[in-house]
Amino acid sequence: MTDTGKAPIDFWFDFSSPYGYLMSEKIDALATQYGRQVKWHPILLGIVFQATGSRPPADGVSSKGLYMFHDFHRSARHMGIPYNPPSRFPLPTQNAARAYYWLHGQDCALARQFARATYRAFFVDDLDISSPEVVLQIAAQLGVDRSSLETALQSPEIKSRLKDECEAALKAGVFGSPHIIIDGEAFFGADRLPQIEHWLKTGGF
Amino acid sequence: MTDTGKAPIDFWFDFSSPYGYLMSEKIDALATQYGRQVKWHPILLGIVFQATGSRPPADGVSSKGLYMFHDFHRSARHMGIPYNPPSRFPLPTQNAARAYYWLHGQDCALARQFARATYRAFFVDDLDISSPEVVLQIAAQLGVDRSSLETALQSPEIKSRLKDECEAALKAGVFGSPHIIIDGEAFFGADRLPQIEHWLKTGGF
Repeated sequence: MTDTGKAPIDFWFDFSSPYGYLMSEKIDALATQYGRQVKWHPILLGIVFQATGSRPPADGVSSKGLYMFHDFHRSARHMGIPYNPPSRFPLPTQNAARAYYWLHGQDCALARQFARATYRAFFVDDLDISSPEVVLQIAAQLGVDRSSLETALQSPEIKSRLKDECEAALKAGVFGSPHIIIDGEAFFGADRLPQIEHWLKTGGF
Repeated sequence: MTDTGKAPIDFWFDFSSPYGYLMSEKIDALATQYGRQVKWHPILLGIVFQATGSRPPADGVSSKGLYMFHDFHRSARHMGIPYNPPSRFPLPTQNAARAYYWLHGQDCALARQFARATYRAFFVDDLDISSPEVVLQIAAQLGVDRSSLETALQSPEIKSRLKDECEAALKAGVFGSPHIIIDGEAFFGADRLPQIEHWLKTGGF
């Protein structure tokens, strides 16, 4: 389908969010089906939780935490997406997010490729994506110059870009990951995909 | 489809839970389709939240709370279920739950009818189902003897039955509403209906 000329769909996520990963594997194809673009915004859920007074949903100890670990895996199977529970979880993701924004300034498509590769590195290959070394390696495999990216990860511009995105997320009402906003309508969670599809198809409810 | 002889599906819910209401409108028909029975268990989420250290998800003030109020309504529309946001929410539901268990001791089918009527009284007709008077009225409309039920609502047996059910819920790992358990597999939230259907169809994932 051709582009509808409508504003892009905003996709807010943290690279450490399992449901964010599930959404990342579906949202672009779904949007394309309805002639829409998607703007990806990696953010840091820690900052969002702190600002909104929320807590991470999955602690791996409480009955809810244990359920969620089980549900991540089951939801992935149900959606036909590869998933291996990461051995370190959750992880800080500022390096991955900063790399994304720096790459995005050079080449949007490459940044998208990097984001997908980073999610799979974490949720399929169990790599420690909090490590700058791993982030550089993922990018290098996509042809990115290692030392330029290494420098960028510490640059004030990129650090402040990520901070700005987190603030923009809060301003947009984002309280978790994944958070999708289409034409001002918010959808939280990978399990809202059927409602997102309905919205794209009909423009409302 | 005829009964499969398998154990009934457990449906844990609070009468004040919007997603519990949405589940209540779907689960019986879905179970019947796969030859299964459903056992309804009204519980008090306040007790569950206290025991698990959780908080009610929808406060109506935070960005998450506001989103959820919107999502209750949108999810109802998406599922084709009538929904009018109650003007008093959430409400204590011990009277409704006690009435359910007393009725269940007399007539299971009547108890189920009462549960449905109570959910609709709250989420469609905006009645204050925390009030014993309203609970008695709902039951009376189904032919229940008012004064017997009025007495039962204060009986130690019924009070302790509800307490036992809340404890059983916690023991079963319930941390919210609706919580469905099928053959030991837990599903939390009305949005897990597609996964529940898949489970009923295939017996796993």
